[in-house]
Amino acid sequence: MREVLVIGIGAGDPDQLTLQAVKALGRLDVAFLVDKGDVKRDLTDLRRDMLRQYAPRARVATVTDPERDRTTDAYAAGVDDWRRARAARFRDLVRDQLTEDETGGFLVWGDPALFDSTIGILDDIDGVAFTYAVIPGISSVSALAARHGIGLNRVGRAVQITTGRRLATEGLPPGVDDVVVMLDARNAYRAVDTDVDVYWGAYLGTPDEIVRAGRLADIKDEIDEVRAAARARKGWIMDTYLLRRRDR
Amino acid sequence: MREVLVIGIGAGDPDQLTLQAVKALGRLDVAFLVDKGDVKRDLTDLRRDMLRQYAPRARVATVTDPERDRTTDAYAAGVDDWRRARAARFRDLVRDQLTEDETGGFLVWGDPALFDSTIGILDDIDGVAFTYAVIPGISSVSALAARHGIGLNRVGRAVQITTGRRLATEGLPPGVDDVVVMLDARNAYRAVDTDVDVYWGAYLGTPDEIVRAGRLADIKDEIDEVRAAARARKGWIMDTYLLRRRDR
Ligand SMILES: C[S@@+](CC[C@H](N)C(=O)[O-])C[C@H]1O[C@@H](n2cnc3c(N)ncnc32)[C@H](O)[C@@H]1O
Ligand SMILES: C[S@@+](CC[C@H](N)C(=O)[O-])C[C@H]1O[C@@H](n2cnc3c(N)ncnc32)[C@H](O)[C@@H]1O
Repeated sequence: MREVLVIGIGAGDPDQLTLQAVKALGRLDVAFLVDKGDVKRDLTDLRRDMLRQYAPRARVATVTDPERDRTTDAYAAGVDDWRRARAARFRDLVRDQLTEDETGGFLVWGDPALFDSTIGILDDIDGVAFTYAVIPGISSVSALAARHGIGLNRVGRAVQITTGRRLATEGLPPGVDDVVVMLDARNAYRAVDTDVDVYWGAYLGTPDEIVRAGRLADIKDEIDEVRAAARARKGWIMDTYLLRRRDR
Repeated sequence: MREVLVIGIGAGDPDQLTLQAVKALGRLDVAFLVDKGDVKRDLTDLRRDMLRQYAPRARVATVTDPERDRTTDAYAAGVDDWRRARAARFRDLVRDQLTEDETGGFLVWGDPALFDSTIGILDDIDGVAFTYAVIPGISSVSALAARHGIGLNRVGRAVQITTGRRLATEGLPPGVDDVVVMLDARNAYRAVDTDVDVYWGAYLGTPDEIVRAGRLADIKDEIDEVRAAARARKGWIMDTYLLRRRDR
């Protein structure tokens, strides 16, 4: 049967690849690259470099993720249509690019288990038989903590991983003292008025890496400026941060 | 100056080592092994195998984590004394086993950022100058999700990582639909009466690996039995699980 590997490649540093991921890359007949139609050339280049080094004999097949209709009225219906269209496109890819006994792989940023759609799309596919396996990767969350030399949570306490959108609409989640925020497009940390420390990192693991840490109230303006400057320079930003309630 | 590397080694499968971890192991003059005085021989053996393969020239220095006084009366004072004793022991280790220009490393299970004390101990040390750096590892949480072929959270939603003790005393945390539980010594999932699916895994990534998934109400007795049998067989268990609220 066709086999699909969902391979976590780490969050920016090519040395974050695991030995398991290197072995998986070496087994690929076909590597699927998802073109999200964005400007993040560096991210595609990193994947191409990995393929050149670890999967030199794999064919490369590119798939374009369909655009989502984001007009508010059509939103709910839009999501369903879009999921169907997307699953159909990925089904065609698996069916047409892989012969029955071949192995294809998706190179997924960070850890495929965190805020990535690949697994969900594969679950939506029908009309072609295949097995799939996931190879875990170093997430940007792990990379953030390592870069700052901190734990994600305090002894015996919990940590929550959430999105900028949720932080903006719901505030700091209750009952948890350490909160990691991803996908924050609009500086949601600005509205946090609890006394917290922030551990922030952008482009972690890449040559563009920037980090800042301190009491949020003291450094939020600086983070705003650094973010804006980085986004202006590169055209996009990829950053994450941990908010840690200060012990009373 | 002395340099200390805190190296995440993955949660059981030696192929979960990253290339960065392999390079770090290769640079070690001394590898520190923490003997927790427990029965988990396999975990120590895995580290020794990694050293043999990737750090053949490193000297090995073993440190015993001091016993904590767990008698209830002395608890708060006990924790402080114990932290001090522990920091002193690790300070002696760094000072006596490393010369001024050498590099030592701790091989930390999973990701050093999750429920591991090494970074906290290094922060507590004084009396010897050293720098330290952390190398992220694949956590048992990532391994769990990969093994089940699932994401940790649903699209746009949050995930919380907590302990068995917290789940037992506080129940499922509010406002979050996906909860990963670690360090559950006493089957805390039994008391959850919300309608959730469970994705459970023990000894993930090792030859003893066991996984189960299903609606918690349907399979909790089975998990109890599998846990008890595994613990009886090996003398200890190491397991984690994701509780996922079922969509209403
Ligand atoms: C679509 S999610 C993918 C997450 C990925 N699966 C992971 O495990 O890190 C993209 C978000 O991840 C975070 N992110 C990914 N790579 C990053 C990096 N190198 N530095 C900082 N944040 C990063 C950012 O919050 C970004 O908005
Ligand atoms: C002291 S914590 C260390 C966690 C580690 N730093 C990590 O990133 O996975 C130990 C707990 O991690 C979980 N754990 C670690 N390795 C595991 C494995 N191979 N399979 C299942 N659970 C594991 C269990 O919940 C266990 O009680």
